[in-house]
Amino acid sequence: MVKNSKTLCQKLGYEFHNPNLLDAALTHRSIRGNNNERLEFLGDSIINFIIAAALFQQFPKAKEGDLSRLRANLVKGDTLAELAQEFELGNYLRLGAGELKSGGFRRKSILADAMEAVIAAIYLDAGMAVCQERVLRWYEVRLQEIGRSSGMKDPKTRLQEYLQAKKLGLPDYNVLSIQGEAHQQTFRVVCRIEKYSQVTEGVGSSRRSAEQEAAQKYLEYLENA
Amino acid sequence: MVKNSKTLCQKLGYEFHNPNLLDAALTHRSIRGNNNERLEFLGDSIINFIIAAALFQQFPKAKEGDLSRLRANLVKGDTLAELAQEFELGNYLRLGAGELKSGGFRRKSILADAMEAVIAAIYLDAGMAVCQERVLRWYEVRLQEIGRSSGMKDPKTRLQEYLQAKKLGLPDYNVLSIQGEAHQQTFRVVCRIEKYSQVTEGVGSSRRSAEQEAAQKYLEYLENA
Repeated sequence: MVKNSKTLCQKLGYEFHNPNLLDAALTHRSIRGNNNERLEFLGDSIINFIIAAALFQQFPKAKEGDLSRLRANLVKGDTLAELAQEFELGNYLRLGAGELKSGGFRRKSILADAMEAVIAAIYLDAGMAVCQERVLRWYEVRLQEIGRSSGMKDPKTRLQEYLQAKKLGLPDYNVLSIQGEAHQQTFRVVCRIEKYSQVTEGVGSSRRSAEQEAAQKYLEYLENA
Repeated sequence: MVKNSKTLCQKLGYEFHNPNLLDAALTHRSIRGNNNERLEFLGDSIINFIIAAALFQQFPKAKEGDLSRLRANLVKGDTLAELAQEFELGNYLRLGAGELKSGGFRRKSILADAMEAVIAAIYLDAGMAVCQERVLRWYEVRLQEIGRSSGMKDPKTRLQEYLQAKKLGLPDYNVLSIQGEAHQQTFRVVCRIEKYSQVTEGVGSSRRSAEQEAAQKYLEYLENA
């Protein structure tokens, strides 16, 4: 059942410097020794932080209660198990004989725990910036959707709607610079609007997050103009 | 009641690039507008992660259940309020009239929330590495004590006890290099033991954490020797 983890790394979009970390993350506690229980503990705190920070940035007007509710939805076991299923993580798990027999590789709680452990393994292998970039890439569509379905709009959407309502055309985003090594890059993006002389700048670990920040700053400028 | 935040920054050991972040962190939700509710949400996830990562590293043999229990103790409201009291945070809080009258600046929950908000403010001002370094410095004694009182020993203590039991003298730690700007430094430390030719290296955001890693690696060497 345990497939070569190379194809898993391709799906995750992350190559481990220390493959032992990935092995441990994929080892269920039904196997003694170096299993994923400790990594799961660490990974749980990492995913909670990464999603909290993303929501905090994405919804600058949202109340604490709304942020908590959105986060709970994104980090709950079902969502993590879904993510694990997208990576077919179950095919790579090492389970004890009992769990194997009872189909443990399909059980949601086991998949969710392993997903958290994989997140911790990436953090230990490469640090928070790389881990954050990866996790946000995995969550990109979910974060976009949760904004739409919750009625809370991200800064780029709000800026676009504001400009369309005033028939002012679309904002223009340009990458100023990309610094740092692959997976640790910092993007600087500027936002321009034809009818205004104002230019705002955003910085982020992805082009999208830098654009969101630039859009947010433009909204603040327009609100105070 | 609200003192100049300069003296608070000295106590925290952190100077804000953007003082508005600190102002928001010190503003209770009894004041409308830019108060600390959202920062508290973010700060809660940051302190949970920082303490989880510190315990994970400090107690490489601890079970997930023990790590959870230790963390709960370190991030609970009472502990955060204690920390806030050490910084006399209550003297710097901005509270609405009602809270002021009822002595809100002394209330534990208000102090703990503000402490979490200050942690988020440092993260937003300077990034995770700086925030982590600061928080771990504040928690340094508590982390040492919790190790002793819980019967779990950190790697440096275990290495020292191992060597003393074998009458092999004390390990020798030397800083190889310190890189990066102030508050973002990376320490590389080597650990040597006179009777052995093995040298191990540890990396960390403080000298202490680099030494712990070097000690842990030496223990692993000795266990496999």
